[in-house]
Amino acid sequence: MSRTLKKIDMKKGMIKVSVLYPEGVGKTFDMDYYCDKHLPMVSGLLGDAVKGSSVEKGLAGGAPNSPATYLCMSNMYFDSIESFQNAFGPNTKQIMTDVPNYTNAEPVIQISEVVI
Amino acid sequence: MSRTLKKIDMKKGMIKVSVLYPEGVGKTFDMDYYCDKHLPMVSGLLGDAVKGSSVEKGLAGGAPNSPATYLCMSNMYFDSIESFQNAFGPNTKQIMTDVPNYTNAEPVIQISEVVI
Repeated sequence: MSRTLKKIDMKKGMIKVSVLYPEGVGKTFDMDYYCDKHLPMVSGLLGDAVKGSSVEKGLAGGAPNSPATYLCMSNMYFDSIESFQNAFGPNTKQIMTDVPNYTNAEPVIQISEVVI
Repeated sequence: MSRTLKKIDMKKGMIKVSVLYPEGVGKTFDMDYYCDKHLPMVSGLLGDAVKGSSVEKGLAGGAPNSPATYLCMSNMYFDSIESFQNAFGPNTKQIMTDVPNYTNAEPVIQISEVVI
């Protein structure tokens, strides 16, 4: 499956939902599964509510030779919190059930407003 | 000063440098100062090495009524780690000296590779 998610068309005031997977002893993250299977599934379930997506792989921290805080940072953009909640709510169980297939990290979720 | 930073022109393989300001008791973040004074200053110092920027204000966590993990998430995109290091290195002191002017939070820095 190709990695052809919608690219970000980000505007001030949009809602960004970040899912951050913390690095830690014994923590793993299967980026191929995530990009090729999980994200397309999520994208299909949430449909047009998703205005854009991005995924980043953690490389390092700010201090020399320090590890990244997050193995992966994944972001989806929505027009509003309501739009996110309406899209995500009915699909929460199916989405969450797939998480152990690619990571044993406990994701941190942050809802933000795009300022710039 | 207008909030006219370069928008993201994000490509697979680019380097994303995230500066994350953790929420916490007594932690403050002056978004106006950050967007109108700090970021333009940083942008001017780093010059063409910066390929794009984004700033998000934390609204909430994933669980109902939970606070955001980060007051602010700020991101800059570079062509490579070397490009980031070369641009940031000589300006580190001037940039860091300005931080107390807008926050008392201790920023978390993450260097990532854009995957999608």
